[in-house]
Amino acid sequence: MTEQQPHILVTNDDGIRAPGLLALKDACARIGRVTILAPSHNWSASGHVKTMHKPLRVDAVTLADGTPALSTSGAPSDAVALASLGVVEEPIDLVVSGVNSGANLGHDVTYSGTVTAAMEATIAGMPAIAVSLNSREYDDFTVAAEFAARLGRQVLEQGVPEEVLLNVNVPPLPADEIAGVKVTRMGLRIYRDRLIRRLDPRGKPYYWIGGPEPTGIEEEGTDIWAMAHDYISVTPVQLDLTAHDVIGSLEEWDLEL
Amino acid sequence: MTEQQPHILVTNDDGIRAPGLLALKDACARIGRVTILAPSHNWSASGHVKTMHKPLRVDAVTLADGTPALSTSGAPSDAVALASLGVVEEPIDLVVSGVNSGANLGHDVTYSGTVTAAMEATIAGMPAIAVSLNSREYDDFTVAAEFAARLGRQVLEQGVPEEVLLNVNVPPLPADEIAGVKVTRMGLRIYRDRLIRRLDPRGKPYYWIGGPEPTGIEEEGTDIWAMAHDYISVTPVQLDLTAHDVIGSLEEWDLEL
Repeated sequence: MTEQQPHILVTNDDGIRAPGLLALKDACARIGRVTILAPSHNWSASGHVKTMHKPLRVDAVTLADGTPALSTSGAPSDAVALASLGVVEEPIDLVVSGVNSGANLGHDVTYSGTVTAAMEATIAGMPAIAVSLNSREYDDFTVAAEFAARLGRQVLEQGVPEEVLLNVNVPPLPADEIAGVKVTRMGLRIYRDRLIRRLDPRGKPYYWIGGPEPTGIEEEGTDIWAMAHDYISVTPVQLDLTAHDVIGSLEEWDLEL
Repeated sequence: MTEQQPHILVTNDDGIRAPGLLALKDACARIGRVTILAPSHNWSASGHVKTMHKPLRVDAVTLADGTPALSTSGAPSDAVALASLGVVEEPIDLVVSGVNSGANLGHDVTYSGTVTAAMEATIAGMPAIAVSLNSREYDDFTVAAEFAARLGRQVLEQGVPEEVLLNVNVPPLPADEIAGVKVTRMGLRIYRDRLIRRLDPRGKPYYWIGGPEPTGIEEEGTDIWAMAHDYISVTPVQLDLTAHDVIGSLEEWDLEL
């Protein structure tokens, strides 16, 4: 390895002990020098967090394969902020977040710790990829990790537009059963959350937000369609959330004080 | 009040005891019947959370003015999910989140508990407004609350497009010093976070993400420009984060497995 190698930060939201992180580190080590800074525990559906009201810990740990890594008490987006603000001293050329156990499709991206880590990187001016496996059971993260590294190499060569990150979802299949790769738009998730009300031992109610996994509308060209047809999905995600085409009609409203 | 009155859910991210919530409840009570379900404590910069790994409490409380309300241990987005999933039995016609103490401009919206409560409402199919005051010190929330209610009345009459919410920011000024109302796009925030490293009593380091308030680029037409020129800002925010104009160039990449 030479001094010229790109420096890649690997993080995730399933926590530093997750096998998806290890697979991603292995794959990224083939395209650059890897630093790992990831949350000490699982932060699924944690959203885009900036922890300012309490201090954060960063601990040196050793992964299952002997690799040194950094673990933080913060959220995935905190891990990226800590790294970019100086906990990781050398400049970072690329941030890769994952491999998440479970897809991040459609509106999932607004909740996803995996994606919001990539958002934090993008806001801080570092190109970023979020990568997720469309299964919570399938335990071979190799295909997803290898594809993310391959994509990472191209991001390093060609760059991505400012304010844009790449959100990758991979079907839980061996490489030779994957139909190909599609650049997609965000599809429409159908959440099936329901409220489960229980009584505690003192007779007071508490609630679980539960229910089955979300489904989605399999419209062609979307990330949800890609998963249903065994394609890897690459969605460019932007941080400008303005509904530009609504501005004109709102200006017609009676908006004086 | 008649049966025909719209039913408005008021929530926030500063917590159920925040004065901005009380002001918003008063203003919304003039356009409909109000139910309050808000977090029991402050959730600033909490992001879009869906709490699934632990149960949530909902408690009946009484606000400073005697109004009955519901308080939850969950995040602002959890409060909206709980309400829409059945903790609030009657259908909700509009969700208003705020008045936040502190602006939510530019990329703030991805971190903001105030805005992600509105996002959760939008995903659940309820029109939503997030409203924030551009100051953490100014303590008169009346102008912001009254404007949000006025805007809410128009949302109830005219609707908003699917997948779109309205993000409102209000200057900390009396009504007669406000220059007017602008429909804006998201501006570019300049975050000035820095890392503060300290040692605990046992000599181990811990970190604060600190630094001064973010500034922003005062480009005309943006929410940041509106604040700098004493206008109320109304930004339509969409939940489709796809960078549609990047799809074509990504399709040119070598994306095979």
